[in-house]
Amino acid sequence: MIDFLKNRATVRSYTSETIPQDILDELFQAATRASTTGNLQLYSIIVTKELEMKEKLSPLHFNQPMIKQAPVVLTFCADYNRYSKWCEINRADPGCDNFQAFFTAAIDALIVAQTFCVAAESKGLGICYLGTATYTAKAIGEVLGLPKYVVPVATVTVGYPAATPQLADRLPKVAVIHNEKYTEFTKYEISSHFSTKENLETSKKFVNENNKENLAQVFAEVRYTRDNFEKFSIEYMEAIKSQGFNF
Amino acid sequence: MIDFLKNRATVRSYTSETIPQDILDELFQAATRASTTGNLQLYSIIVTKELEMKEKLSPLHFNQPMIKQAPVVLTFCADYNRYSKWCEINRADPGCDNFQAFFTAAIDALIVAQTFCVAAESKGLGICYLGTATYTAKAIGEVLGLPKYVVPVATVTVGYPAATPQLADRLPKVAVIHNEKYTEFTKYEISSHFSTKENLETSKKFVNENNKENLAQVFAEVRYTRDNFEKFSIEYMEAIKSQGFNF
Repeated sequence: MIDFLKNRATVRSYTSETIPQDILDELFQAATRASTTGNLQLYSIIVTKELEMKEKLSPLHFNQPMIKQAPVVLTFCADYNRYSKWCEINRADPGCDNFQAFFTAAIDALIVAQTFCVAAESKGLGICYLGTATYTAKAIGEVLGLPKYVVPVATVTVGYPAATPQLADRLPKVAVIHNEKYTEFTKYEISSHFSTKENLETSKKFVNENNKENLAQVFAEVRYTRDNFEKFSIEYMEAIKSQGFNF
Repeated sequence: MIDFLKNRATVRSYTSETIPQDILDELFQAATRASTTGNLQLYSIIVTKELEMKEKLSPLHFNQPMIKQAPVVLTFCADYNRYSKWCEINRADPGCDNFQAFFTAAIDALIVAQTFCVAAESKGLGICYLGTATYTAKAIGEVLGLPKYVVPVATVTVGYPAATPQLADRLPKVAVIHNEKYTEFTKYEISSHFSTKENLETSKKFVNENNKENLAQVFAEVRYTRDNFEKFSIEYMEAIKSQGFNF
């Protein structure tokens, strides 16, 4: 039953086919059966299908073409709004204006997001996660009308694959799964774990195109730079705090 | 193919049956096919099977019986250790000593965790998430020997279900899925969304046993109190920072 999971890959290009509403409903039904903290479902899913909304979201996802091309864009949000209102109605202090509450709700949102993705893939759909949701969370929140205690944590594009995606490389199992205690690897072992990735033709092309010495430098100096990480750290923390989670 | 997802529930009690290694390996194979940021697999999974390790972890999960009873306990961790070493070997600055890097790796860890869980359930296994991983992350890290840039984000117990679990209540779909923009609900609507939960016999029992006026008060004043949220906010942030992610 899990065989499709062993051969799945991210899908970044979709056909023009829309996703029937009954299939979307079934996927949401499956996704919302996922476990959440205290079964409180501390998340919300914002469904974007309208072109006008996609055009507003697109630059906030750095104009990655999936946003406009996918029939459905989902923004999974940590959500303590609903719970805090329920508490207010019932003369209870939600106590959720802090980091732990945000993180708890973020976990809920991500577990539901991935359950949706697996369900979607089991139906022949393809998905792509966009990390940009945490880079521009404040602006995304303004477009989607997110109220207090609601923060984007992941955006997923969904649609029928335009082509069968190629399986991507993975680190060897020993590098990521540790028995009983964490294994600290030697430099030699670390190099060995990344060697498959480094030796891909696409990797070699990235290194050449970017005039770098090696693949790690492409990742660290071009794709995920310190400057961007630090900028987006400040901006995401500000977005989280501005929604009411103080820390 | 996704039908089991529509009828799944958390499993907190397991038979004494062990999980064959080849099944675990297959589940890890499926889980590690999940999408991660830049395909960097910024996570590690620590597998606990030994009784001695379970006994050390048990109090850190507030002695919830699943830890000792489940044949396998998994601690999913955000992990920038491997990547930062790879960068160091290759004369690149990993730039990961910040909040955004931690959160990026936490997303990776949770997506992999939930892929594992869905795969496990498709094989007839039952799972339970333990939020305590974020409450006592520092102490868990010491037991598991987690080095710099590795932080627990979720613990999952896995085993064969001792009984078929009952489906739990869920909020109505309209409460959690929003079309195009976030719908802010009225107090009346919020009360209505929680009414199924409030009217469960188990909920009424909780309210009576705890001498509270209503279910929201049980959640806010007994299960997830402000005092605990604030305490665990400080402790989790300290754990994250002590592993090298400054913010």
